Amino acid sequence: MVIPFSRIAIIGLGLMGGSLALALRAHGYAGALWGAGGSPEDLHLAAKAQDASGKSIFTGLYAEVSELPWEQLDFLILAVPPAHLSSYLVLASERLPAAAMVTDLASVKGDLLTLGESLLGKRYVSSHPLIGSEGRGFGSASAELYQDYRCVLCPGSDGPAQALTQVAAFWQFLGAELLILDGRKHDMIMAATSHLPHLLAFAYLAGFAERKELWNCAGGGLRDFSRIAAANPKLWTEILLGNREAVGQELRNFRKRLAQVEAFLEHADATSLENFLAQGQEARSRFLFPPH
Amino acid sequence: MVIPFSRIAIIGLGLMGGSLALALRAHGYAGALWGAGGSPEDLHLAAKAQDASGKSIFTGLYAEVSELPWEQLDFLILAVPPAHLSSYLVLASERLPAAAMVTDLASVKGDLLTLGESLLGKRYVSSHPLIGSEGRGFGSASAELYQDYRCVLCPGSDGPAQALTQVAAFWQFLGAELLILDGRKHDMIMAATSHLPHLLAFAYLAGFAERKELWNCAGGGLRDFSRIAAANPKLWTEILLGNREAVGQELRNFRKRLAQVEAFLEHADATSLENFLAQGQEARSRFLFPPH
Repeated sequence: MVIPFSRIAIIGLGLMGGSLALALRAHGYAGALWGAGGSPEDLHLAAKAQDASGKSIFTGLYAEVSELPWEQLDFLILAVPPAHLSSYLVLASERLPAAAMVTDLASVKGDLLTLGESLLGKRYVSSHPLIGSEGRGFGSASAELYQDYRCVLCPGSDGPAQALTQVAAFWQFLGAELLILDGRKHDMIMAATSHLPHLLAFAYLAGFAERKELWNCAGGGLRDFSRIAAANPKLWTEILLGNREAVGQELRNFRKRLAQVEAFLEHADATSLENFLAQGQEARSRFLFPPH
Repeated sequence: MVIPFSRIAIIGLGLMGGSLALALRAHGYAGALWGAGGSPEDLHLAAKAQDASGKSIFTGLYAEVSELPWEQLDFLILAVPPAHLSSYLVLASERLPAAAMVTDLASVKGDLLTLGESLLGKRYVSSHPLIGSEGRGFGSASAELYQDYRCVLCPGSDGPAQALTQVAAFWQFLGAELLILDGRKHDMIMAATSHLPHLLAFAYLAGFAERKELWNCAGGGLRDFSRIAAANPKLWTEILLGNREAVGQELRNFRKRLAQVEAFLEHADATSLENFLAQGQEARSRFLFPPH
């Protein structure tokens, strides 16, 4: 797959943006790659990052987003927390050359697509690579994060954006399996497959901060079940509130199932309990999980 | 650490018992090792199992537990589902020589300790190695399952059993970090650290058997969060019902936390939500998880 861009900038040099930069070079991207934003620590680590041949990952790095060589860009990737996206979309619409495309990596789309379209028209396609890690910042970034993964593309409400083919090619260059979903559908699905499990893992643990007797009695099952609760509380507050209607709906559905299983437990109803657990086990076997 | 037994039998040749047999040989145990029980498939695979030097793992294998060389045993390990334990404890009390020790690997202790003591006196010490896998049967068994793990030992209600030192030495020979807990405390802790998370993972998935649109939208977070719901529904029905009071209590506590977080979501209360998530994240950092 040939990458359709050669003058790319990434705003946001944390786990997601940093890993994306590393993955681009690891997959052989030879064009210009500028980075901006991020903490002094992220910028420092990004400046030292090299590809396998010892070449710097970035063509240039800027603490201030305004210093980016805007007029040269053909593709801008916004890898910043959800709360900052709209202001960068505005900036992009003011500074980018007319042919440059834009994407973001946001976990919740909400009104983002409408805003992006109104500002950038069909040059904007929203992306969501379904990857993550409990790490934070460029120090946790790794090209391997973008391995064996799916990436959702959200065309605008007016139908496929002009940029869709190019942005799709960009992700395919990075090995993604692509899914096309409209923004609303994306948010409803993510409420079920990502936001609710995060909320449950956090809520599960929130009661255990004082229960010392539990801390050395955990096995590998609990380690894996609770891994997503090691994620950033500030980022997850933004995500959960950004998608609170859909998450609320999934939460109400989950509580109904929980009430069911609680009743089976109370009445020591082994047959119903086993059927219920078997339904959960069966549902899991239908999911297509990434291999590692 | 020297192993204090040289004539060991394992009843149950599934994931747990099979892995234990493999781990014993991998750690250099050179004594007799008999196996009994299990499906024809498990017995077939056990008969073919060899250590690194090509020697058979088992000294002898028996489809019928009655065929075991009972009079020769100095240690009997019950690696059978919870529902079968009491009948094997009775059998052990009838057939074992007076000096032989007995343990089990049960996830719930309940009345087991009282029964074991009444039948076997201080020759019985209950064990619970905190390991697991979604695999089943000897075909999924692996010595590596018993690696970097903790093992709980439950002395009887009358205080430390005579067998405690020997059974402790047995697990230390197999590299376990030991925890000593009374049976009731064990069950209360496991309700929180193992049984509730399993129940939540099953309940989370139980609603998704028909929601096709979710199945190809899962990332690594959901894969890990839901891994424990790939476990055996029949076994987990026994475990959850065997510990249903303590599990019920943890479930009620969890539902209170869930109601809290639901209110934060409804009122878009970002500050409280972030504090709540941070509590969960903080609690997770206190747990001592096995490294892999």
